[in-house]
Amino acid sequence: MLNIGLLGAGRIAIVHARAISAHSGSRLVSVADVMPKAAQELAQAYGAKAQTSDEILSDPSIDAVLIATSTDTHSGFIEAATKAGKAVLCEKPVDLSLDRARACQKAVQAHGKPVMIGFNRRFDPNFAAMKAAIDAGEIGKTEMLTVTSFDPAPPPVSYVKVSGGIFRDMMIHDFDMAQFIMGGLPKTIMATGSCLVDPEIGAAGDFDTATVTMTYEDGRIAVINNSRRAVYGYDQRVEVLGADGLLQAGNMLENTVVKSTTQGVVSAKPMHFFLERYMPAYEAEWSAFVEALSLGEEMPATLADGIASLAMAEAANLSVAQSRPLNLAEVLES
Amino acid sequence: MLNIGLLGAGRIAIVHARAISAHSGSRLVSVADVMPKAAQELAQAYGAKAQTSDEILSDPSIDAVLIATSTDTHSGFIEAATKAGKAVLCEKPVDLSLDRARACQKAVQAHGKPVMIGFNRRFDPNFAAMKAAIDAGEIGKTEMLTVTSFDPAPPPVSYVKVSGGIFRDMMIHDFDMAQFIMGGLPKTIMATGSCLVDPEIGAAGDFDTATVTMTYEDGRIAVINNSRRAVYGYDQRVEVLGADGLLQAGNMLENTVVKSTTQGVVSAKPMHFFLERYMPAYEAEWSAFVEALSLGEEMPATLADGIASLAMAEAANLSVAQSRPLNLAEVLES
Amino acid sequence: MLNIGLLGAGRIAIVHARAISAHSGSRLVSVADVMPKAAQELAQAYGAKAQTSDEILSDPSIDAVLIATSTDTHSGFIEAATKAGKAVLCEKPVDLSLDRARACQKAVQAHGKPVMIGFNRRFDPNFAAMKAAIDAGEIGKTEMLTVTSFDPAPPPVSYVKVSGGIFRDMMIHDFDMAQFIMGGLPKTIMATGSCLVDPEIGAAGDFDTATVTMTYEDGRIAVINNSRRAVYGYDQRVEVLGADGLLQAGNMLENTVVKSTTQGVVSAKPMHFFLERYMPAYEAEWSAFVEALSLGEEMPATLADGIASLAMAEAANLSVAQSRPLNLAEVLES
Amino acid sequence: MLNIGLLGAGRIAIVHARAISAHSGSRLVSVADVMPKAAQELAQAYGAKAQTSDEILSDPSIDAVLIATSTDTHSGFIEAATKAGKAVLCEKPVDLSLDRARACQKAVQAHGKPVMIGFNRRFDPNFAAMKAAIDAGEIGKTEMLTVTSFDPAPPPVSYVKVSGGIFRDMMIHDFDMAQFIMGGLPKTIMATGSCLVDPEIGAAGDFDTATVTMTYEDGRIAVINNSRRAVYGYDQRVEVLGADGLLQAGNMLENTVVKSTTQGVVSAKPMHFFLERYMPAYEAEWSAFVEALSLGEEMPATLADGIASLAMAEAANLSVAQSRPLNLAEVLES
Repeated sequence: MLNIGLLGAGRIAIVHARAISAHSGSRLVSVADVMPKAAQELAQAYGAKAQTSDEILSDPSIDAVLIATSTDTHSGFIEAATKAGKAVLCEKPVDLSLDRARACQKAVQAHGKPVMIGFNRRFDPNFAAMKAAIDAGEIGKTEMLTVTSFDPAPPPVSYVKVSGGIFRDMMIHDFDMAQFIMGGLPKTIMATGSCLVDPEIGAAGDFDTATVTMTYEDGRIAVINNSRRAVYGYDQRVEVLGADGLLQAGNMLENTVVKSTTQGVVSAKPMHFFLERYMPAYEAEWSAFVEALSLGEEMPATLADGIASLAMAEAANLSVAQSRPLNLAEVLES
Repeated sequence: MLNIGLLGAGRIAIVHARAISAHSGSRLVSVADVMPKAAQELAQAYGAKAQTSDEILSDPSIDAVLIATSTDTHSGFIEAATKAGKAVLCEKPVDLSLDRARACQKAVQAHGKPVMIGFNRRFDPNFAAMKAAIDAGEIGKTEMLTVTSFDPAPPPVSYVKVSGGIFRDMMIHDFDMAQFIMGGLPKTIMATGSCLVDPEIGAAGDFDTATVTMTYEDGRIAVINNSRRAVYGYDQRVEVLGADGLLQAGNMLENTVVKSTTQGVVSAKPMHFFLERYMPAYEAEWSAFVEALSLGEEMPATLADGIASLAMAEAANLSVAQSRPLNLAEVLES
Repeated sequence: MLNIGLLGAGRIAIVHARAISAHSGSRLVSVADVMPKAAQELAQAYGAKAQTSDEILSDPSIDAVLIATSTDTHSGFIEAATKAGKAVLCEKPVDLSLDRARACQKAVQAHGKPVMIGFNRRFDPNFAAMKAAIDAGEIGKTEMLTVTSFDPAPPPVSYVKVSGGIFRDMMIHDFDMAQFIMGGLPKTIMATGSCLVDPEIGAAGDFDTATVTMTYEDGRIAVINNSRRAVYGYDQRVEVLGADGLLQAGNMLENTVVKSTTQGVVSAKPMHFFLERYMPAYEAEWSAFVEALSLGEEMPATLADGIASLAMAEAANLSVAQSRPLNLAEVLES
Repeated sequence: MLNIGLLGAGRIAIVHARAISAHSGSRLVSVADVMPKAAQELAQAYGAKAQTSDEILSDPSIDAVLIATSTDTHSGFIEAATKAGKAVLCEKPVDLSLDRARACQKAVQAHGKPVMIGFNRRFDPNFAAMKAAIDAGEIGKTEMLTVTSFDPAPPPVSYVKVSGGIFRDMMIHDFDMAQFIMGGLPKTIMATGSCLVDPEIGAAGDFDTATVTMTYEDGRIAVINNSRRAVYGYDQRVEVLGADGLLQAGNMLENTVVKSTTQGVVSAKPMHFFLERYMPAYEAEWSAFVEALSLGEEMPATLADGIASLAMAEAANLSVAQSRPLNLAEVLES
């Protein structure tokens, strides 16, 4: 039984608290948040204590911490927690700054404790089944990946301003999906972005619609399409063409009911909210963390993976700015 | 090249005229109809002559006739045409009277010319693929058949009055489908019917909604559901459970476009009109007739098949009237 | 916060224990089972006590009991629990004997405590959405219901022998679905059954394949198809035709991945195991119980509903035995 | 009734001959081909004459010619036919050379006869329905287009060598689709290509896998993915995101049968052969030509459209060669 401390008590932390409690191999013992009341409520719901983050990190009975705080605190907490001898599962991204993320990685290597980055989509049953089919050779060598990732509605501009931009905030999941599905990193990245949904997002210097094309050393191609608005729901699809076939992971719908009337044949919409859509993924992610920790195996989504996705996002930003394909090496070796 | 005479120039005859003309092995040479103007127009469109039915039957250059006239003339024309030495493809049903149909069968046997009954659905690419999969053993021994067959809208009551009723007019196609898919005839037939769509249909002594359950000697079960109204289109589905799996033949949609909006995920409706839905089936039916005739093989839908479906319809009528399961033998051996 | 006692610690009790614990308005406080070790393990996993059923029923701090024991103990526990002042959620069926179930109902009325029968499928998100669409008038007046309900594999014959037969054990869920979707009870029931899957089931006097057709006073029709074997998974579909359209609730698949190869376009199979398929339904069922209890509202699946489904099963048994349609009144008024 | 001369008697000419003959407003009167035997056979099958192309062009009774000859003869025949006073439907592309195509356009303008280019996909019922939905405002303003266009298998290298390359030979259809769906021309074109399927295609200087990203003046984005090999069939999908929803035009399958076994749920494959897949499109294309000609309306796919698609292909070639986004203006104004 692993004793878990939870840093953060917000929306995503609540999801993690449930997953930790539901797992037969872990127990939520403590919750910390900058808003003590939030920490107290969440702790109470699962029979845990509300403490400060310092108390959690210095508590020797706590085996691991789950970091679900604001992005700007991620790298600091990762360093502090590993220094304190805790295993870590940290929400993405590691940091908005690639340099800062690398410094964090260096510190973690010194502390020698396992760190997993919360790329939850790797644990989604659909994408995981797709990955398993590829690994089993069911479509032969992969050739072309297409990731469609549309949010139901854009976030408030106040969020956009601190988010790091669409590539680091939103497409970073898809960059990780490309790593996960294609294996390895792309050689070149060509990005384009537009502001079609909300002019205020453009005024804040960001895009709300973007496409990235990546090529691999061996000629394979990956395309990622992002939009901040799909009025019909959270649209999350991955498609990969291989020498021997095609794999498509489709959306999860609200229910299976189909209604046929004079208006047409109507199915339910894709699940609208990311927490609902990815609930099974969050549970599977936690299981994978507990299992890797228990067995002493490598984490299924490493700090290096997180840094690679961040580097792809940075390359995408440069590509748009310079209107040319970037070699990922230009960013990685900077 | 077979020379074909066409009896009838109505809606369904037009479909057949096109199929005959499009086939590289047949040529439409003559058309007859009780309305000479209709015959002339159809003949002209395909470079054929307009003649009387007598002229067609007595023309030695005509190899085969396609009978697409009104139901009450079917058995008479079948007899006359086979007597005149023509091969015959006749629209279903053979006759509304089982006795009359049997007399026709006897006459045809005496004349020794091949007769095919136009159970077009056997030649529908979807149902034919289902049948092929069953014959290939892909789902093992069949166990339970469910046929869903809903018309988009009820016919006028004037038609209902001369149609012979829902079992002989509409479900007869599904009785033939049961023969086609399950092989052989059922042992018992239990029918129920209601008037839910148009009270005038009930006033005319007919049903507009009906279900038949049939059991086979070996315990297999078949269910047929009919309704005269499916506002979303012509709903034609067949599903069969076997020891090793399930086969489902679904509807053909107007197009493949799917629209996702705040209202849901909307597909196109099933094709609305039976001629549109079964156009490929009519073409394949004609090809099958030409091929069987050319090769001297048995027709893929025989007069005996037509009589068996008629007997099932009669048993269904009796079952409803007597509110009990009928043994098909009670009708067949009457 | 409701304090809950759980009678039973088997497969289905484990599912309920999780749902009770996960619900913010209920707490599992005690578990009883004929096998004390099973009760202890389950209690421990959720921080509850292991007690005897007598101890649970006589504990005044317990507000409600969930009965998940063997069928033959259901009616007795319902009576004892309501007598002891507890609200009850009891797994289906109430009893295998209609008379015994009626006696139980009488006793419960005397005790005046609320009882809900665990027809979990009413709470399945898909069937619930279908019901909501009907109630909202989206397809107009219902006309024809088709329930397809196939188990992945037959139970052991030892189970079949004590199960009460396919109509009382398996189709009872579908009888309740008919009540739920169509509203009210059918007037006539015509059943047919076969043994196609496992001859030992036939030797035990039961069927493994069965079809029931029911007609309603107003002419509506319902068809239920059951098979004990669908090798591709747990096949649970409901389809209802109305004056203004069709509703279909399809299967839930293991994942959304579609693989296209030279072999065809392959989707995942339906979820195989009923606990996996209906997990969301069990959680929603528990929420509905807690809500009805808290608000003092009528239970969404009553003891009367359970008795009605049992009566339909009994009518089906008689219909097969006598090879005729039964009036449900013949059973209900016996 | 329009009298039609057909230049060419190959695979695609045969399709057109059928469409011309089936149409009530046109008649095939003459066929020419560099292989006189092919012309004779095709002519005979439809009651037409076999002549030389010169004879056809100088025959005053012929109203229009359909050009289905090899690509290098297209522009010459367009010029000669319009000079001879014929209306023209010519297969794509106009020419492999943009300059030559422009010269052809100038000549045609001088002759003043209508010319339609055979972008058959515009007339596909699925893509046409998608276009109609966009024009009806059903998804609001379009924002992002994704075209997936995979051939079932690569052509022989001998063909690749004279084809003009993947952008001019294969993706030209998709460039036209972008014009059709998005309206207007893109501002920038960024292309990438690989050789993943057949090394001989690479040795011939061409790609077999390619992606193009295009941006429009107003910020909209279009992505086209091409592969010369999709082992599961001819994969032809178009998807467009708009402010108010998403439209997806999916593949047409060989049939609607779905088979569920222990191996999964298997649907039929996409139609494999482009002539089968686009047969309805070829028929609708011909109808559109006849209608526009009869009504004196503008052709629904003009020579200018053909030249624009060719310019996009040329821009794609330059983009790959120079590894940078091209402004379409660089090509159009050259």
